[in-house]
Amino acid sequence: MAREFQEKLDGLKEYLKKLEYLTSSIALIQWDSIVNMPSKAVEYRSEILGYLSGESYKISTSKKIKQYIDFFSNSKNLDDITKGTIKKISKDYIRNNRIPKKEYKQYIVAGSISGAAWEEAKKKSDFKIFQPHLKKMVEYNQKFADYWGFKKNRYDALLDIYEPGITTEKLDKVFGNLRDAIVQLLNKIKESGNSPDIKFLKGNFPKDAQEEFAKKIMGKMGYDFKEAGRIDESTHPFTTNFGNKDVRITTHYYENDFRPALFSFIHEAGHAIYEQDIPDTLQGTLLAQGASMGIHESQSRFYENIIGKSKYFWDFFYSEALERFPQFKDISLEDFYRGINFVEPSLIRTEADELTYSLHIIIRYEIEKLLINGDISVEDLPNIWNEKYKEYLGVEPKNDAEGVLQDIHWSDGSFGYFPSYALGNLYGTQFLNKMKIDIPDIYEKISQGNLTIVHEWLNENIHKYGAIYKPTELIKRVTGEELSEKYFIEYLNKKFKKIYNIN
Amino acid sequence: MAREFQEKLDGLKEYLKKLEYLTSSIALIQWDSIVNMPSKAVEYRSEILGYLSGESYKISTSKKIKQYIDFFSNSKNLDDITKGTIKKISKDYIRNNRIPKKEYKQYIVAGSISGAAWEEAKKKSDFKIFQPHLKKMVEYNQKFADYWGFKKNRYDALLDIYEPGITTEKLDKVFGNLRDAIVQLLNKIKESGNSPDIKFLKGNFPKDAQEEFAKKIMGKMGYDFKEAGRIDESTHPFTTNFGNKDVRITTHYYENDFRPALFSFIHEAGHAIYEQDIPDTLQGTLLAQGASMGIHESQSRFYENIIGKSKYFWDFFYSEALERFPQFKDISLEDFYRGINFVEPSLIRTEADELTYSLHIIIRYEIEKLLINGDISVEDLPNIWNEKYKEYLGVEPKNDAEGVLQDIHWSDGSFGYFPSYALGNLYGTQFLNKMKIDIPDIYEKISQGNLTIVHEWLNENIHKYGAIYKPTELIKRVTGEELSEKYFIEYLNKKFKKIYNIN
Repeated sequence: MAREFQEKLDGLKEYLKKLEYLTSSIALIQWDSIVNMPSKAVEYRSEILGYLSGESYKISTSKKIKQYIDFFSNSKNLDDITKGTIKKISKDYIRNNRIPKKEYKQYIVAGSISGAAWEEAKKKSDFKIFQPHLKKMVEYNQKFADYWGFKKNRYDALLDIYEPGITTEKLDKVFGNLRDAIVQLLNKIKESGNSPDIKFLKGNFPKDAQEEFAKKIMGKMGYDFKEAGRIDESTHPFTTNFGNKDVRITTHYYENDFRPALFSFIHEAGHAIYEQDIPDTLQGTLLAQGASMGIHESQSRFYENIIGKSKYFWDFFYSEALERFPQFKDISLEDFYRGINFVEPSLIRTEADELTYSLHIIIRYEIEKLLINGDISVEDLPNIWNEKYKEYLGVEPKNDAEGVLQDIHWSDGSFGYFPSYALGNLYGTQFLNKMKIDIPDIYEKISQGNLTIVHEWLNENIHKYGAIYKPTELIKRVTGEELSEKYFIEYLNKKFKKIYNIN
Repeated sequence: MAREFQEKLDGLKEYLKKLEYLTSSIALIQWDSIVNMPSKAVEYRSEILGYLSGESYKISTSKKIKQYIDFFSNSKNLDDITKGTIKKISKDYIRNNRIPKKEYKQYIVAGSISGAAWEEAKKKSDFKIFQPHLKKMVEYNQKFADYWGFKKNRYDALLDIYEPGITTEKLDKVFGNLRDAIVQLLNKIKESGNSPDIKFLKGNFPKDAQEEFAKKIMGKMGYDFKEAGRIDESTHPFTTNFGNKDVRITTHYYENDFRPALFSFIHEAGHAIYEQDIPDTLQGTLLAQGASMGIHESQSRFYENIIGKSKYFWDFFYSEALERFPQFKDISLEDFYRGINFVEPSLIRTEADELTYSLHIIIRYEIEKLLINGDISVEDLPNIWNEKYKEYLGVEPKNDAEGVLQDIHWSDGSFGYFPSYALGNLYGTQFLNKMKIDIPDIYEKISQGNLTIVHEWLNENIHKYGAIYKPTELIKRVTGEELSEKYFIEYLNKKFKKIYNIN
């Protein structure tokens, strides 16, 4: 029995490795498509990717996988890793098999057409062009959610793809409180009249100096971009990996503003460290990846904001910045710190500051929930979008391009994904709270440029587990608590009241 | 009947496309391994490539393929393309199926170990380290040749992999005459005492200027490196492609010598143009590639030597060179031309001049033939190698690294590949001869910088057919003659007697 068990387990791992090889191949070819591919190759390239994705789908819905699932579901006393693997393949199997193959293929084609329509609509700033396609994508997702099933809210079935275990019920509460707290704080900031000087943020920042500075920081963070990763340029920064020894990030430089490249470097390096820390032993288990999109985002945002926009961090790194950007010489550390944390409600999510960012996400969450449950129709979107921006952020889009059309996510039907971004903020401050208990002098260490101690804590508590635990389990294991908005709200109030001199 | 035929044909094409997608994926991942991969990723990367190669092997040896082969082998009046496809898949099927699967796997593993041993041996310049591994690779290839079968000479079975239709009998005659002719001409050159001035070949050649100059030339050649290709750097220059709209080349710059990058650019662009010219209609036929290694090499060497080292070419481009490398200002075009065609027997194949290059290949051919037929043993290799170098080239390696260990090819068992390089020279001058008949003022055109006319002729006569015809058929279709050494010998005599002022 024990022998049969071990043989089955070895067999399963061998089988899952194929899936991992395909996933890695697809990721590498996608990376190349964005970073290197000549323009005329786009059509053939998408054929290649379509083929490889199809092969991956075949394996994850195969009879062989079903046999493994059946065998191990009847096994008792599984260790956490095997348990995690079986949960993962069962979930993928069910998800993939419940959608009729033909329908899924139609969905993929529709998504590709919808993506092109979104691009055109955004260019022309005309929601009408995108509207019928978006309607289709919503309808498909409604149907899929029904195929998959849910307990209380249809949107839960979609949330579960990206953040297993998270429900609308929970998010309504958490995001509701967070929204109110941010709006309140934002109003106080506006009333305070204390606006930091931000002229120094713009100027001339040579690309080479930006890169060198970022590399210095990422080296301290512990991202190995030399022997187990690399850095390239692309329009939108991203991280991808093929195994744990080839984790690549990209950035986009603006020579008139040092912030986009710098903070995206720190952000992506946060993702990259996570992937590099995943242990070799998780290969062939499908768990050699982050626990969820939200947990992944908690790592990148932890580094980008909690660390990278903290006073402690700049205590150490400001002299390095001064060396490379001599124009800062008349700007005090305090003014620099206040400047990079300047709060300004704006229209574009990706350009938002640390405080208002979550409001952009909450707006999308509220809208997605209404859409998927059929409580609003696609035609109403631009109005609802604009109303919510006015209500929460006090700004109003002048056109669809800077409003409802700004994000690519809905065009291929990725409903349920947006909340991960804000969840990352919540998880991040929950981890921070625990980290401060475990390492009482953590801020002092950071002030001394010791980011290794941060990295080690994250690895020991989060990274090394890969995707063994669901995010809901992981947060409980690490902090002893469930997902909560409390720490993030505290953090924001403390930080921004100080910066804006609010009592 | 006609309908069944068309359905089968469509089915076959769909099936073969999968094989092409895998081939392209493998090529892209290998390109990345050489150009971009961080060092620690090497092991996992080889697992990915092993998996994809295995999938490709499965398709090409599948029952489904066998069914297609059987169906179409009984069909009459096939067009040339379908005929070519069936020949190709039959050949691959037989080749792959005759080797027991287990043995093939062992061979792949042995090849990988042998490759590492070769590397170490070369580094330490000690053939003994490589010897037992090379012995194994020879034995495997002997066995495989026996599995595959041959008419007269066991080595023919290996030649047939790279240059279908070519036999040892033919090569003995062709290479024998070529060897004697080159040795004779080489002796006359030595006796002539007329050595061109070559001091100007070395100096300071900034990388940017080299790149810009090469791009100018490659643009004129018709290689689209902007929208359907790209240029990168690697230790050894190479060309690879993923379809006909993503054809990439690499080079290696030496800032003290402009020749390596320049001529490798022209060489690789010759390969690249071939692949870019393959028509879309050949997708899904397995014929969307060059006709053979030798024909491919005929294109690259045609551009590198026949065009790129001709007086006509430099009539046009020398002023461009002068602009970028002002140190040439006191060197006349004639002296420049003589300098880049300087003949000097040397030890290293990849550094050989146009005249002596083929002798390096012929030595390898003669040795491979003896090895595979068991007429010499691996232990004897360094001695035989050194003797042949002394006899044909008049030079003697001081150690194994600059002798028998210089090339990677034998380490993974690629016996039968070397001849392609010299065959490229022969095909190239045969094509040249026909081109001169078709375009009497071809040299004048080249002198005017018109390389388009050359490209068009090559496309019309060679490129557009992809691998529809075997090289033996192709050369006959294009020139009306079989493979012959005659034109290359004439070409060499005419060119180098003039340069060295020999009557």
